[in-house]
Amino acid sequence: MGSSDTTIQLAHGGGGRLSQQLIQELLVPAFGPANGVLHDAALLPSPGQTLAFTTDSYVVRPLFFPGGNIGELAVYGSVNDLAMAGAIPVALSLGLILEEGLEMATLERVVQAIRAAADRCNVKVITGDTKVVERGKGDGLFINTSGIGAVERGLWIHPTAVREGDALLVSGDLGRHGVAILIAREELGFRSTMESDLAPLHTTVQELINEGVELHCLRDLTRGGLTSAADEIARAAGCTIELEEEAIPVQLQVRSACNLLGLDPLSMANEGRMLVICPASEVDRALTVLQRQNAAASKIGTLKAGTDVRNLHPVVLRNSLGVLRPLDIGRGERLPRIC
Amino acid sequence: MGSSDTTIQLAHGGGGRLSQQLIQELLVPAFGPANGVLHDAALLPSPGQTLAFTTDSYVVRPLFFPGGNIGELAVYGSVNDLAMAGAIPVALSLGLILEEGLEMATLERVVQAIRAAADRCNVKVITGDTKVVERGKGDGLFINTSGIGAVERGLWIHPTAVREGDALLVSGDLGRHGVAILIAREELGFRSTMESDLAPLHTTVQELINEGVELHCLRDLTRGGLTSAADEIARAAGCTIELEEEAIPVQLQVRSACNLLGLDPLSMANEGRMLVICPASEVDRALTVLQRQNAAASKIGTLKAGTDVRNLHPVVLRNSLGVLRPLDIGRGERLPRIC
Repeated sequence: MGSSDTTIQLAHGGGGRLSQQLIQELLVPAFGPANGVLHDAALLPSPGQTLAFTTDSYVVRPLFFPGGNIGELAVYGSVNDLAMAGAIPVALSLGLILEEGLEMATLERVVQAIRAAADRCNVKVITGDTKVVERGKGDGLFINTSGIGAVERGLWIHPTAVREGDALLVSGDLGRHGVAILIAREELGFRSTMESDLAPLHTTVQELINEGVELHCLRDLTRGGLTSAADEIARAAGCTIELEEEAIPVQLQVRSACNLLGLDPLSMANEGRMLVICPASEVDRALTVLQRQNAAASKIGTLKAGTDVRNLHPVVLRNSLGVLRPLDIGRGERLPRIC
Repeated sequence: MGSSDTTIQLAHGGGGRLSQQLIQELLVPAFGPANGVLHDAALLPSPGQTLAFTTDSYVVRPLFFPGGNIGELAVYGSVNDLAMAGAIPVALSLGLILEEGLEMATLERVVQAIRAAADRCNVKVITGDTKVVERGKGDGLFINTSGIGAVERGLWIHPTAVREGDALLVSGDLGRHGVAILIAREELGFRSTMESDLAPLHTTVQELINEGVELHCLRDLTRGGLTSAADEIARAAGCTIELEEEAIPVQLQVRSACNLLGLDPLSMANEGRMLVICPASEVDRALTVLQRQNAAASKIGTLKAGTDVRNLHPVVLRNSLGVLRPLDIGRGERLPRIC
């Protein structure tokens, strides 16, 4: 057995026999059509009158972490981006950038994880591409997934649809994905049983829609966490956002880990949590749906009248004493390669 | 002016202020909506009843080469994949994986090239993502583009649609992209004025369709060149393919460069050339359309009756003496990072 069977070589990306082998023996069995015949583009019946389209690259380090791996992340991440527009996910693409020397067994585990995650979300990986870069020019495995989803006619869930007086809800406790990654990198100096919150959100979104909850905006709380998401939405809408510090659900383990490292749990990445913005009158119904999935789902704040759009800090946090402090998004260098 | 203005830093991928700056100051002006408000997924009206969907990552080295650059390649490459299914390209996604330390000026040049290429193809980049990896874990800039296209009802241009007796045509001379990359890497030991054949093919495909040419299969001749494309189609269709060596257009410069390096021009990558497979009765009309774009377009071979699908060499080359030799696709290690 040559090393071409056990590790990735440059030839696996060269368009010759090893490329064909990789595709026909690993990727087609996992994702391909029954007849194994691939084309430059895949065809699909249009799933509706309005499509959602999204893309994300995944460079998380390490590839496997407590509660997930880069393969699941690549599926749920793009499924969640589609769900944030209210879309039902339909099809995914899969772009792999492999580093020469990657263990074939690692790639196989990731491919199986992608397949299982796609099955769970009822989406199909229908088109793909594989490139190989020289040792030292990549980092094992990068993944890109793009997704197509179907949006029900007339649905407009978007940062520009929010209104003064709207309520902000989170779908569960915050910060676990970021902390799980730090634990996996052994940057914490202690062990923990904590796992990433990585999970698909599309069924929860569909339940909200099916229950007739009027949704103004949804945003999954990935890189930059709640802090970045709230800041972006406030800027887009020309509003200020007031968050109630005490109402924001954060597990004690997350809080402790963040204290140790001088990090803010509200800026930590999540991969299975979203912000839901809806009229105040819809809060009870929305929370009923959200709490079926996660008991920690809570109303955490309110949209207030707009100020100058160049406002440096459009998001403020009110603590238990009623004191307001601006929430700063930071430059962003503290947590690289989190997704 | 800090280095955050002139080079990419990890924080540009961290979801904080530098991420926002990169997006709002570079990417939104090039691609974004007029109001600058982005969402996790972009919405678009479905362009038809049948969609084509494709993805490709681009890791070409160097980023700029005679006749093109990674940005143009990322647009035309995915536009061409859509065109190979007969689709009219509609929307692209753009995923950037940047290496810490990349010159901001380089990124700006690439972004402008992407914008210009997309404009030329009448497609819009409607969704995107940016990740940053540490110095030494990437190679300047990798790009993924995925594309959505619209396929006219009933059109079925696919490797499984080819028939015994079909003719094979190429849309122009072969091998220039691969040689241009080798020249750019200074692997040839001499200079040349040769440029890549990089170009979009969708308008040519639409002209063929509009002229009523019955198209059975189209395949752009990228990695692995004509050799890999013919091999894959022969296997998919369970046919053999007989190519006429003398009829295959290759410029003298390409032939000489390949001779020097012991490479086969038929296995060199092209980024603006396609194989057209159609009934023999359609050859004249197809060539008329193809030769409007490139005078070197030619009929180069024929599909013959199938043999054992496990045939090691389903493609044979007939030379001027009538001698047949099998065309071997090779392992694929000779030309890494060509696209």
